[in-house]
Amino acid sequence: MHQDIGLEQAWQLLQEQCPSLGQELVLLDDALGRVLPRNLYAKHDLPPEHQSAVDGYALGESPNADHSYRLCQDQPETGGVPEVLKEGQAVPVNTGGVLPRGTVAVIPHEKVVVEGQYLRVLGNIKPGDNIKRAGEDFARNDILLTAGTQIEPAALGLLAALGIGEVEVFQKPRIAIICLADNIVPPGLEPDRGQMRDSNGPMLSGFISRQGGVVTSVHYRSVTGTSMKNVLEDLCSQTQMIILVGGTYQNGKNTSRLLMEDAGAQVLFWGVLIQPGSHVGAGKLDNTLILSLSGNPAACAVHYHLFAAPVIRSMQGLPWKYRQVVARCSNGFAKRTSSRRLVRGKALWRDSGWEVEVLPGQKPSMLRSWLGCNALIDLPPGGGPIEAGEEVQVILLGEYTDV
Amino acid sequence: MHQDIGLEQAWQLLQEQCPSLGQELVLLDDALGRVLPRNLYAKHDLPPEHQSAVDGYALGESPNADHSYRLCQDQPETGGVPEVLKEGQAVPVNTGGVLPRGTVAVIPHEKVVVEGQYLRVLGNIKPGDNIKRAGEDFARNDILLTAGTQIEPAALGLLAALGIGEVEVFQKPRIAIICLADNIVPPGLEPDRGQMRDSNGPMLSGFISRQGGVVTSVHYRSVTGTSMKNVLEDLCSQTQMIILVGGTYQNGKNTSRLLMEDAGAQVLFWGVLIQPGSHVGAGKLDNTLILSLSGNPAACAVHYHLFAAPVIRSMQGLPWKYRQVVARCSNGFAKRTSSRRLVRGKALWRDSGWEVEVLPGQKPSMLRSWLGCNALIDLPPGGGPIEAGEEVQVILLGEYTDV
Repeated sequence: MHQDIGLEQAWQLLQEQCPSLGQELVLLDDALGRVLPRNLYAKHDLPPEHQSAVDGYALGESPNADHSYRLCQDQPETGGVPEVLKEGQAVPVNTGGVLPRGTVAVIPHEKVVVEGQYLRVLGNIKPGDNIKRAGEDFARNDILLTAGTQIEPAALGLLAALGIGEVEVFQKPRIAIICLADNIVPPGLEPDRGQMRDSNGPMLSGFISRQGGVVTSVHYRSVTGTSMKNVLEDLCSQTQMIILVGGTYQNGKNTSRLLMEDAGAQVLFWGVLIQPGSHVGAGKLDNTLILSLSGNPAACAVHYHLFAAPVIRSMQGLPWKYRQVVARCSNGFAKRTSSRRLVRGKALWRDSGWEVEVLPGQKPSMLRSWLGCNALIDLPPGGGPIEAGEEVQVILLGEYTDV
Repeated sequence: MHQDIGLEQAWQLLQEQCPSLGQELVLLDDALGRVLPRNLYAKHDLPPEHQSAVDGYALGESPNADHSYRLCQDQPETGGVPEVLKEGQAVPVNTGGVLPRGTVAVIPHEKVVVEGQYLRVLGNIKPGDNIKRAGEDFARNDILLTAGTQIEPAALGLLAALGIGEVEVFQKPRIAIICLADNIVPPGLEPDRGQMRDSNGPMLSGFISRQGGVVTSVHYRSVTGTSMKNVLEDLCSQTQMIILVGGTYQNGKNTSRLLMEDAGAQVLFWGVLIQPGSHVGAGKLDNTLILSLSGNPAACAVHYHLFAAPVIRSMQGLPWKYRQVVARCSNGFAKRTSSRRLVRGKALWRDSGWEVEVLPGQKPSMLRSWLGCNALIDLPPGGGPIEAGEEVQVILLGEYTDV
């Protein structure tokens, strides 16, 4: 067990203990944002045959210098288009239509004059013009999408074009949340004096859903009572991650640490040298990672991004390291910090480079600092105050890097 | 009706005709990503009362120089904490717990020594330490979230903290898709020779869902037959936008233009001076915007981003103008262009500034160019070829600006 470690060491320990995730077959309609566990290959050429790229006329070899062609009669038994186009023949084709053998080029409607059964082309004909060659987008056995790809809309189109109706993806990481504070009541209940409504459950559920995970349940000690050990053990068999939120301090340990130990989890680390919320911890029980995050909402959100999100991404085979940039701080930060401090900010790229604004409400309890937050200013121990215009190191929360 | 206009004029016409969107009440669980039509205000202070920011002890006025206090007995009738803390008294409190009147500061467990009924504080006490003042995050009647805000996870937490269980948001833009090409078959059907599987429906559905819209239905002329006018009219009463995809060229007009006119839509413009796909068009029928996009998948995706996405965002009160930056092209583009051309690229910010890679497969039919695409290189008429290392104008597809 590691005590009071640095952030980078915590990342390393979490990656070493990253839970494994199963795979499942989903319909294409449900595949957006899901991640491929292995490469997908083209079963056939795309397009499967030579096709027209425009609405117009397929032209055979040109018999003469003035580019006049004889129009073929429609051939209903082959979908209106003959199998072969002979010298001097032309036939109307639509975008995506299969081209007859012998097609030299396709010419759009705008560039021809039709006179009865004859057609004259205005301008030059370049062989191959407006022809989509079989396999020009993807040839049979080409890699369509590589392992680790997050399925985007264009990939849905590509898979549909190849007749793929379902696709194997990583399961969604299943995550349960347990709020350990006695004085936190779930949404929908009216708090008594000394109680507070929970904000962490709804906030974490939002963050988790954005990262492709699913919150299976949120438990409240104030409702369930003190038998949290059974709850934790039950959840272990159903989830890859359990997030413990809050937990009161007792006899040098807090509820969440005691709970982990009680359930027989291996404690990976306890305490990370950061502000806000140095009392963060992590454990592992079978294949389930258990994280203990601060109950103060702004600190909880910092912890989520630093400790939970990287594991949720990594489980799915997605890059998990945040991009870090140097940014000019537009407004400054008045405080000096003894520990390494993560200050909530809003980063924006300007023509002159990255700029970051320190958001108002930097106490660990204040949600105001998370509204519009897309970056953490990474202030080293002994750092600050930050002058307006000073350069600072920034962690971009929405951007990841492979390296 | 405007013919063969510039992109900026098309944007202006579309914004002028942007359909209006209704509002609806949704549960907080369903509010992530939705947009507020008006400001939300705090009904009460947050926190509602003075609270402890840590697990520790609330301290009254200090009676002596050595900072020793007498521990209050628990007061079960007030949740364990007395109403008032007198001089020299201390009482245990948990994070978020209400503080008695007369509390000067809260001191965490780690900084005290408890000896029987007495407590000694190690170090100095700064009045106000570890106290969350009532209303310090949000005071009663403060604006919580402004109109036009897209609800993010932290906002869910904030609303939950204030006991707000449902919230008024813009309805999701409802969009129908009609594939007009005779030779396109829907997913699940086996194409005959000369037919192709649809890729545009699944791709557009993915793009639309990412922008907060919902695809109500996808229709195929190859299945429905030629009575598309009735389909269009029916859909008008149920949607804010209808996207016509493809449509074969006939007598100087294409199916989609004829369909719009036939249904009595006001044609806003036809033809935009861009490549790929200059034959794009737009019309309006009652409150429904009708867009006619290219049937070639890569051109269709360009059209979607240039013409449909800005309207879908604008309807919801979101900024719709793409951020445009100058980027260094890492690999170049071999072609010279006569019209203004949108080249699919992948943009990445490096320490030296923006860089963009031209993606492979730039024909209008090739989906390969959309895999990983997050930017359009905006090549002016007569522009290109682009040398590797040359600076180009780039439209960032995932980033928007208010100005």
